[in-house]
Amino acid sequence: MNKITKKALELHNKLHGKIVITGKIHKLRPGEIKLIYTPGVAAVCEEIYRHPEKKYDLTSKGNNVAIVTDGTRILGLGNIGPNAALPVMEGKAVLYREFGGVNAFPICLNVTKKEEIISAILAIEPAFGAINLEDIESPKVLEISKELEKSLSIPVFHDDRHGTSVVVLAALINSLKLVKKQLDSVRIIVAGAGSAGYGIAKLLTSSGCKNIIVTDSNGAIYHGRQENMNEYKEELAKITNLKKETGLIHDVLKKSDVFIGVSGKKNLVNPGLIKKMNRDPIIFALTNPDPEIKPGIAKSAGARIVATGSYLYHNKVNNALVFPHLMRVILDRKITKITPDLLLATARAIADTVSKKDLSYDNIIPDTYDKQIQKNIFKAVSRLRLK
Amino acid sequence: MNKITKKALELHNKLHGKIVITGKIHKLRPGEIKLIYTPGVAAVCEEIYRHPEKKYDLTSKGNNVAIVTDGTRILGLGNIGPNAALPVMEGKAVLYREFGGVNAFPICLNVTKKEEIISAILAIEPAFGAINLEDIESPKVLEISKELEKSLSIPVFHDDRHGTSVVVLAALINSLKLVKKQLDSVRIIVAGAGSAGYGIAKLLTSSGCKNIIVTDSNGAIYHGRQENMNEYKEELAKITNLKKETGLIHDVLKKSDVFIGVSGKKNLVNPGLIKKMNRDPIIFALTNPDPEIKPGIAKSAGARIVATGSYLYHNKVNNALVFPHLMRVILDRKITKITPDLLLATARAIADTVSKKDLSYDNIIPDTYDKQIQKNIFKAVSRLRLK
Repeated sequence: MNKITKKALELHNKLHGKIVITGKIHKLRPGEIKLIYTPGVAAVCEEIYRHPEKKYDLTSKGNNVAIVTDGTRILGLGNIGPNAALPVMEGKAVLYREFGGVNAFPICLNVTKKEEIISAILAIEPAFGAINLEDIESPKVLEISKELEKSLSIPVFHDDRHGTSVVVLAALINSLKLVKKQLDSVRIIVAGAGSAGYGIAKLLTSSGCKNIIVTDSNGAIYHGRQENMNEYKEELAKITNLKKETGLIHDVLKKSDVFIGVSGKKNLVNPGLIKKMNRDPIIFALTNPDPEIKPGIAKSAGARIVATGSYLYHNKVNNALVFPHLMRVILDRKITKITPDLLLATARAIADTVSKKDLSYDNIIPDTYDKQIQKNIFKAVSRLRLK
Repeated sequence: MNKITKKALELHNKLHGKIVITGKIHKLRPGEIKLIYTPGVAAVCEEIYRHPEKKYDLTSKGNNVAIVTDGTRILGLGNIGPNAALPVMEGKAVLYREFGGVNAFPICLNVTKKEEIISAILAIEPAFGAINLEDIESPKVLEISKELEKSLSIPVFHDDRHGTSVVVLAALINSLKLVKKQLDSVRIIVAGAGSAGYGIAKLLTSSGCKNIIVTDSNGAIYHGRQENMNEYKEELAKITNLKKETGLIHDVLKKSDVFIGVSGKKNLVNPGLIKKMNRDPIIFALTNPDPEIKPGIAKSAGARIVATGSYLYHNKVNNALVFPHLMRVILDRKITKITPDLLLATARAIADTVSKKDLSYDNIIPDTYDKQIQKNIFKAVSRLRLK
């Protein structure tokens, strides 16, 4: 990590910020100023005033995404505040442009109360075509997301939940093809019951998985558990762990087929645990920047397929594979709600982007650069909308 | 106007939004993703967490400006709301980039109450290096600006007030050179007591003007007037119209030297009125998109110097000459408060940009494209800071 840390700091010191806002017309001529600014622009304002739906044709609203954070849960670093959060949000904005052609702008909020975050987002809505909630602590963010979905007419994409769940399902679909197991029969342990764990458990259930256990620091979540529960864990308790197993990760991971780590805990899993899993263990150690177990160690312990959320290893199960591409499709098709159907179709489209011939233990997921990803999502989502 | 209206609508329909957000690194390589995003970016976040002042070196905060409006007073169009306001804010963002190299992003607020606007701006502060308040109704905006200045550590530039006052003073300084009159002895009528009128009257007073009358729809503002006053008009009543003249614009404009129209009222001034002014009348009819009197008509009636805020005529006394250049200097010099000294120095620097040889009745103000403007402001402001 040291070499990357050094290079990252050097690059950021050199760039002084990673994003640029510019006009579509370069080298603006005087004749153009009177069209894009006063007096010509007045007619454009009046046109939107009279026909509000034209805001999508006459402004950049339909391509603007607010990346909103309050800095309470940045990567695996925790609550470092909105200023220290900015480099992540800018990085995200760069990826949104590079892979999705999206105008994404960081909105780092100086407030952390649920109501204040909701008010700020409702207030800034007019210039944006979508909201991307990012790195806000759970379960607060799940409540915020629910409230916003009720009040906003633009989509609220919660990347930690929606994006992560899609990339995990895509990776799992392809992994199971390789080890010849079925979604509806594998035993899956999801470590972490924050936004990511919640999203993953919900989407995997929608996709047909029947044997999922979600764990948090108190161990397995089950219907009737008393300690450390909340509305969203209660919801999970109803659809997962139907046998009401108890115990910590060390207990439940035994005889499982799949481990999905979104725990925020470095080194949560050790080689001994992997040895107790079923044949061909699948390990997705997705916590960033430091995974639940290092890929080399997991492989040595017998894991058949190992993925992380990091760009340092093979099998990059990172939301970056999802958010720029899916957002492009959401904006282009003017989708206003993120539904399970949309997420399922997207996950399958991403999984299918890896051809049979290219699929291997070290290549379960397409490369972020693969232009086919977006085309496939677009096709899949278009079919969905025709139903 | 019809031709421009048509061309403006066509251009906006073609562009689908005038702004683009992009990364500084184009064609991002995989090796760069791990530096600008996870895992490398984590070290950058931690660096800012430990040393908050480094946010200016490691992010784009220091170059990001929020153009904030609630849509209540857009150009001369009035309260058309935040959606219809967006084309103006985008146009402004384009000019900020083109002439100032600034990342400006439109924040069009869905709220219009003073407290809600203040809360929203305080909430979004972390990603911005400055706030540009734009086209918010007065006197609400003056109260907002005052409150924000107390609470924010980044500068609050109120373009309708600060920007307009600077460009007007610059134009006036040069106009008076041509007609050989003095700032401290000319009689000046400012029509309009909103943000622009308030800012102009204050800055002209700071610059040495001693004979200013500000009018609103009730006529001349004077100390002791009862109708239609507010805190800011009271403030003006103390520093202007010391003889407590009364009457409408038609009465007070007689025997004046300078008319400055920021009234929002098309055709407020007629030729007969100009004929009753002192020799070599100076007419700044600055309301957009339709001025208080058309330049041709004013000239025919005997006006020596005529300026408008529009790009259709000579003598473009438009804030666009100020905000991108001044903001560049504000950001580069990390200025946190907009002071009268700063505005005076800027106005003088802009006036001085027009050389003696180039100065003429139809050329009282430099061209927006003149690269010397920014250099002169920078020099002037640097001297100021050394005091």
